[in-house]
Amino acid sequence: MNIDLNSDLGESFGSWHMGNDKEILKIVTSANIACGFHAGDPQGMLKTIKQAYVCGVAIGAHVSYPDLVGFGRRNMDLSYDELYADVLYQISALSGMAKSVGAEVTYVKPHGALYNTISKDLQQAQAVVDAICAFNSSLYLVALAGSPLIHFAKEKGLSVISEAFADRAYHSDGTLVSRKIDGAVLHDYDEIALRVVNMVKTGHVQSIEGHLTPIQADSICVHGDTKGALEISQKITQVLTEENISIRSFSSLKGGQ
Amino acid sequence: MNIDLNSDLGESFGSWHMGNDKEILKIVTSANIACGFHAGDPQGMLKTIKQAYVCGVAIGAHVSYPDLVGFGRRNMDLSYDELYADVLYQISALSGMAKSVGAEVTYVKPHGALYNTISKDLQQAQAVVDAICAFNSSLYLVALAGSPLIHFAKEKGLSVISEAFADRAYHSDGTLVSRKIDGAVLHDYDEIALRVVNMVKTGHVQSIEGHLTPIQADSICVHGDTKGALEISQKITQVLTEENISIRSFSSLKGGQ
Amino acid sequence: MNIDLNSDLGESFGSWHMGNDKEILKIVTSANIACGFHAGDPQGMLKTIKQAYVCGVAIGAHVSYPDLVGFGRRNMDLSYDELYADVLYQISALSGMAKSVGAEVTYVKPHGALYNTISKDLQQAQAVVDAICAFNSSLYLVALAGSPLIHFAKEKGLSVISEAFADRAYHSDGTLVSRKIDGAVLHDYDEIALRVVNMVKTGHVQSIEGHLTPIQADSICVHGDTKGALEISQKITQVLTEENISIRSFSSLKGGQ
Amino acid sequence: MNIDLNSDLGESFGSWHMGNDKEILKIVTSANIACGFHAGDPQGMLKTIKQAYVCGVAIGAHVSYPDLVGFGRRNMDLSYDELYADVLYQISALSGMAKSVGAEVTYVKPHGALYNTISKDLQQAQAVVDAICAFNSSLYLVALAGSPLIHFAKEKGLSVISEAFADRAYHSDGTLVSRKIDGAVLHDYDEIALRVVNMVKTGHVQSIEGHLTPIQADSICVHGDTKGALEISQKITQVLTEENISIRSFSSLKGGQ
Repeated sequence: MNIDLNSDLGESFGSWHMGNDKEILKIVTSANIACGFHAGDPQGMLKTIKQAYVCGVAIGAHVSYPDLVGFGRRNMDLSYDELYADVLYQISALSGMAKSVGAEVTYVKPHGALYNTISKDLQQAQAVVDAICAFNSSLYLVALAGSPLIHFAKEKGLSVISEAFADRAYHSDGTLVSRKIDGAVLHDYDEIALRVVNMVKTGHVQSIEGHLTPIQADSICVHGDTKGALEISQKITQVLTEENISIRSFSSLKGGQ
Repeated sequence: MNIDLNSDLGESFGSWHMGNDKEILKIVTSANIACGFHAGDPQGMLKTIKQAYVCGVAIGAHVSYPDLVGFGRRNMDLSYDELYADVLYQISALSGMAKSVGAEVTYVKPHGALYNTISKDLQQAQAVVDAICAFNSSLYLVALAGSPLIHFAKEKGLSVISEAFADRAYHSDGTLVSRKIDGAVLHDYDEIALRVVNMVKTGHVQSIEGHLTPIQADSICVHGDTKGALEISQKITQVLTEENISIRSFSSLKGGQ
Repeated sequence: MNIDLNSDLGESFGSWHMGNDKEILKIVTSANIACGFHAGDPQGMLKTIKQAYVCGVAIGAHVSYPDLVGFGRRNMDLSYDELYADVLYQISALSGMAKSVGAEVTYVKPHGALYNTISKDLQQAQAVVDAICAFNSSLYLVALAGSPLIHFAKEKGLSVISEAFADRAYHSDGTLVSRKIDGAVLHDYDEIALRVVNMVKTGHVQSIEGHLTPIQADSICVHGDTKGALEISQKITQVLTEENISIRSFSSLKGGQ
Repeated sequence: MNIDLNSDLGESFGSWHMGNDKEILKIVTSANIACGFHAGDPQGMLKTIKQAYVCGVAIGAHVSYPDLVGFGRRNMDLSYDELYADVLYQISALSGMAKSVGAEVTYVKPHGALYNTISKDLQQAQAVVDAICAFNSSLYLVALAGSPLIHFAKEKGLSVISEAFADRAYHSDGTLVSRKIDGAVLHDYDEIALRVVNMVKTGHVQSIEGHLTPIQADSICVHGDTKGALEISQKITQVLTEENISIRSFSSLKGGQ
């Protein structure tokens, strides 16, 4: 029994620092690295690639809408051709940089607004999926567990990783509770760690409405950019280990980091 | 006896159009494609790559300082690490996009201010050369004929292509006459075409001071963004053909476009 | 009886040229000048301001979403605070530059996707209206004729200019026919000029469904970026003059260019 | 006897946080606010303007080269026209935003590489000075104490504020010791505070070579972005107060914050 832990990394830009990459790289097995469109300048990308590589952490392209000032968190109506090319450009840039140090990009995780939009907007999803296939159809796609995107991308031939969130509440239909609703984000370390273990072992999560809800968790998204976040991630690691659940990258068999 | 003709392509950006890529691709054998830093958005880059590929024209990464509004024509004091990563990012982006359509980047030509600066500033040159080597040391580097960069890059192990300009005047020491000086740019079609033929056949050019000056011309840079420029390029092609000088890419033996 | 003619100007960026500002400034009475977010670098803005000022053409801030590569034509989900500040920043920048040469910004016209979105999305409209009021509540707002924005902005105390399009087809409910539909854009010079005259004299336009449809036309948007577009604008001017309809800026009484 | 304390503020960008504006605004009398070219998005600029205004701190335009990823710290060869328009655009943007909340921009301080370059490159200085004069010739210019720019800008009619650095070592000729040299930056709180008092009271500073060196200090630049920096600023304030040196903005008589 095993699980992957992923986190958003390399989100600094120029003189602006974000995140605690060094500490989080000790915990996770997959590093979603920003590619310059919502964060991540070339110098910072290369540094993060090297750090992940040294730590044996799998490298994924954290592709985004082109919106630096909005950190990729604002929906944008890109055409198919625009989005296809933007995604292809970002994967290409990160991948070439990774190869230059002997590393390899093994997966793609869309970021922010793009992640949420394509989980159900299959027109934009098509552009992302096609761009990944055009670059390298053996790359994994990390997608929201239970979303229409999962089935859609599998049908197009991609290997899809269902992603669950450690600290987010779920509805009984498997969708995430909006951050605008009280209780959407969990804060209790022990509760969060226990939920993760249950997701992995039972394939279920307790919904905010109180029901046992099925969830496919191939990878768990954790954060490390605040003190609490880092400690939650550490707690999750500890409890998973105690439960003899192996923490390893979904791409470890293929990617060979 | 053969010569390569190269031109700057893919220099549109978003809704802004520049150049006459379609016509110039009928003439040249090497396409310097902008990578997003001085020009070229992802959608436009992909379109230009496809056009060049269909035309059997070799594809080069036209890497630049990050200066869209200045079109990469303004000197910038980048550190070694910044420039190294910027160049690596650009080559990677273009190369991955090229591969997605079955094409290949076979060379690198620095653009604008970067081109001029590294022709003699060997500290910045080092960053560019190292980035190319880190990505793929079998890529060619296109550099100003007679410049210190030629020897420097060869010593680092790169294959270097000496570039001459069809319509620019040269001093007797082999350097270009500044555009600020009268007579720096030639306009007579026949004279320009004849100069190109002489460069290729004799390895010499008549300097502005009137001396026969040695010049190593592996590739000739031509333009197509104005009516006159396109006709000059066509004239050069015609005269080269009449002289039985074969026009083909320096990378044709390797790159196999 | 009089009418204003407005056009989008100053839409070049850096080395990229767009539009035919010089010719169109001979025709229009109001110049919508790009402020750097979808087009228009500072140097170009200043040049366009000076040209408009010399021609006695009123100057308006052509404010946009921050999307250079998309030319402001893609919808973006900006928060109220983001949009408010973005609009305020753009009006401020253009206005200060105008003052430096003795000119004055007398109105605001939102550009592209922002123009269309706020014509009916009153949450985003609120941000734009509030930003204008915060800067100078005596600025005019140019808005789509017949749109909910007209009433909304008037209620907030702004002077609103209803804008009609010379070469676009209208539905019987007064909305524009989508460009995706055949017949959405008119091309016949005489027909276009006649429509404009009728809009001004009768306050009606023939809809694509064949009905006489009321339209409030305080300003007519014309284009000059293609040969045909320029000639259409010239034709409109000629016919308006023949009909003794005075072409002058809505802000001429106030702005005093 | 009085002195102004200034600091760089509003240097966050989008989701990236920089500096400790809230604390530093309790200490300084002049706030150099980023205008979007090296830092500062519109939303953040407006927030910083409001904070400064509430604290009664004078507002200055912290204008920069257009280089977000390089934080305005890299030299750029801008033409006179480019630099003139860039500076004018930035002052205009900040000034209009300030006016919208009842505040006022009373001075200009060039940032980073631009600050250093124009202290002695009088061609670029000319563009900056002309842009300020074109916008409002009663704005103060903050310039490096002892630099050629001081005299140059005064001759052009600007009111110039000589700026000294609290924690930087000086040579006997009044120039700053390069950061690359050991001892260039001072760290001892008491020593730094004492130096400031001496600069103000005696118009001299002890040079790194051990000589008493004249320095004109109208304003002292302090930092607050690190814990140590904030405490140094607090110490300076404390010691100045003990010495009965009044801390107030150079623009307080005019600007009337």
